[in-house]
Amino acid sequence: MSTAGQVITCKAAVAWEAKKPLSIEDVQVAPPQAGEVRIKITHTALCHTDSYTLDGHDPEGLFPCILGHEAAGIVESVGEGVTEVKAGDHVIPCYQAECRECKFCLSGKTNLCGKVRSASGVGVMLNDRKSRFSKDGKVIYHFMGTSTFSEYTVVHAVSVAKVNPEAPLSKICLLGCGIPTGLGAVWNTAKVEKGANVAIFGLGTVGLAVAEGAKAAGAARIIGVDIDPSKFDRAKDFGVTEFLNPKDHQKPTQEVIVELTDGGVDYSFDCTGNVHVMRTALECCHKGWGTSVIIGVAASGQEISTRPFQLVTGRVWKGTAFGGFKSRSQVPELVEKYMKKEIKVDEYITHNMKLADINEAFDLLHSGKCLRCVLHLSD
Amino acid sequence: MSTAGQVITCKAAVAWEAKKPLSIEDVQVAPPQAGEVRIKITHTALCHTDSYTLDGHDPEGLFPCILGHEAAGIVESVGEGVTEVKAGDHVIPCYQAECRECKFCLSGKTNLCGKVRSASGVGVMLNDRKSRFSKDGKVIYHFMGTSTFSEYTVVHAVSVAKVNPEAPLSKICLLGCGIPTGLGAVWNTAKVEKGANVAIFGLGTVGLAVAEGAKAAGAARIIGVDIDPSKFDRAKDFGVTEFLNPKDHQKPTQEVIVELTDGGVDYSFDCTGNVHVMRTALECCHKGWGTSVIIGVAASGQEISTRPFQLVTGRVWKGTAFGGFKSRSQVPELVEKYMKKEIKVDEYITHNMKLADINEAFDLLHSGKCLRCVLHLSD
Repeated sequence: MSTAGQVITCKAAVAWEAKKPLSIEDVQVAPPQAGEVRIKITHTALCHTDSYTLDGHDPEGLFPCILGHEAAGIVESVGEGVTEVKAGDHVIPCYQAECRECKFCLSGKTNLCGKVRSASGVGVMLNDRKSRFSKDGKVIYHFMGTSTFSEYTVVHAVSVAKVNPEAPLSKICLLGCGIPTGLGAVWNTAKVEKGANVAIFGLGTVGLAVAEGAKAAGAARIIGVDIDPSKFDRAKDFGVTEFLNPKDHQKPTQEVIVELTDGGVDYSFDCTGNVHVMRTALECCHKGWGTSVIIGVAASGQEISTRPFQLVTGRVWKGTAFGGFKSRSQVPELVEKYMKKEIKVDEYITHNMKLADINEAFDLLHSGKCLRCVLHLSD
Repeated sequence: MSTAGQVITCKAAVAWEAKKPLSIEDVQVAPPQAGEVRIKITHTALCHTDSYTLDGHDPEGLFPCILGHEAAGIVESVGEGVTEVKAGDHVIPCYQAECRECKFCLSGKTNLCGKVRSASGVGVMLNDRKSRFSKDGKVIYHFMGTSTFSEYTVVHAVSVAKVNPEAPLSKICLLGCGIPTGLGAVWNTAKVEKGANVAIFGLGTVGLAVAEGAKAAGAARIIGVDIDPSKFDRAKDFGVTEFLNPKDHQKPTQEVIVELTDGGVDYSFDCTGNVHVMRTALECCHKGWGTSVIIGVAASGQEISTRPFQLVTGRVWKGTAFGGFKSRSQVPELVEKYMKKEIKVDEYITHNMKLADINEAFDLLHSGKCLRCVLHLSD
């Protein structure tokens, strides 16, 4: 029996308040309105942005909410006017929308579509500025326009990437955040070229995706920097050619790298979210042309700083969100690359668990022993 | 009678120590050694970097020295191995060298030649790491590899741009620093395109050259920002289309500009050297693509800062030195552009004086009433 047009009651991991474990609840998911899509989430991974909000570090975090933004699933039903996807389509919900008609989408210069931000930024849907989630009449807010820690979610149609139905949802759910962010930082934002020297700060999922992207781009040296030496062995498989543990050196890390590379690296990437590391990443770049890309999300209120001389002498400071990829257009292309074995995905999955184990999965993420833990909601 | 090979005694404005007026002295200028050129300076302008050093703000400033770096003249003699210029050639000495063989010159990515920096940075010549200036046996240091506040100076051959002898030296001396810096920041560093919106902070010579460059690039709106409203009328002639005095607004200037431009400007330029203004310039840029270029030289030890979110959401922070122009190759091209009336030069000259009036000229520069004062050393 079709559930289209009906309220669905299903399991979801609800964040009732900051700094508390998630609670598995039966929640009500309203049908999609005009321009919306209801998705049966089959698999979702956990990402540090989820725990950043859960831990109360995001001053704009709204509770109660349903977290989660790196997932895949199958369209259950669509609202009025939605033509690009239909029930049964395999999709990846994207926290970065792509409407193809706003100033940002039409600029040709950025992937930061602004269409639904005024609603998704405050946990509601654009159509009526209300949430589709509730429990026994109590409103539960959306998160990042995705809320994938639920068996069913409702997202804006401009945030849905339709993908090859032959691709395994249990794997490609990772193409909703971390991997594209790292690859795109290299390919779209920095535009690393053959023979370049690269430094990567932080060897988690995003850092390893940066390494993979840099290797694919033909980088000559890929220096991985991390204070946890246990990450080094694995990083080699992703393209890191040499390792640097700042704790092994007396000198500031930027000086060590400048010496190692006869003047500094051509490109550096911060994948830590630490503003001091962001400075180091800029200052280890080569005078004249070195470009540093900030990928990590810093704690609220923290600031980056440097001497302006660093920029006047030719270094460039940039940042990236979702790796500069246009979500609806390019996530399906990344899925195809995975199917052709041109990019890794399986290798980032270190753990598979059930939705009921989500708090344990967060503990694993914090421990640093986990790259990506995929929660199987149905299979 | 030729002076080649002889020590020349001539007038120069000597900075005996920081924070003291310059003193016109008879100094001795030794002949050029291998790879060096002795130039009879006919005209020199004053620039804020000269007064920055004279006022003791540059911790690396060496005294006594001969300041000056925006000038033109005629080659008096050349040292061994110098083939690209000869006695009688009209030249502009360039504080930014171009050797065409170092890592920087060969990179194709920067104008920051590193060939003579180790010597010019400490006030001496590369060949014997000594100064060519003295007074009665006492060493006087070079400054920026140019030292143009002297009737004769010695510079490295890699720092000499040979120019069209028909161009008036009394005008094209300005192509040694401020004008190329502003034009190049727009054309080479930011690469402003037709229809773009631009904000310029600081409407001195460099800021006006930015306006001129932006107008030539086809910018739609060129917003000039300055706390001195007396600069506004003149700025119109250089391309500024609207004016903003931060003192006229309660709100932070970045907010005012974001509102004025429906989201921010496409490009901004700091021509003040004030690190707080540099932040404003970045933050008034449009999300997704706005690029801010730092041109001004900040006081020693000062730092720029912002929230990393500014960069993660697509803004780019850069800097420029000598506008990214390759000095020996491109200064002659700028002279040709001036001869074809494609760029202004005369319009920046508000005062003409003699070398003996140099302290008065510095006072004028500080007053803000002067754009460029040209000192006529011989004509």
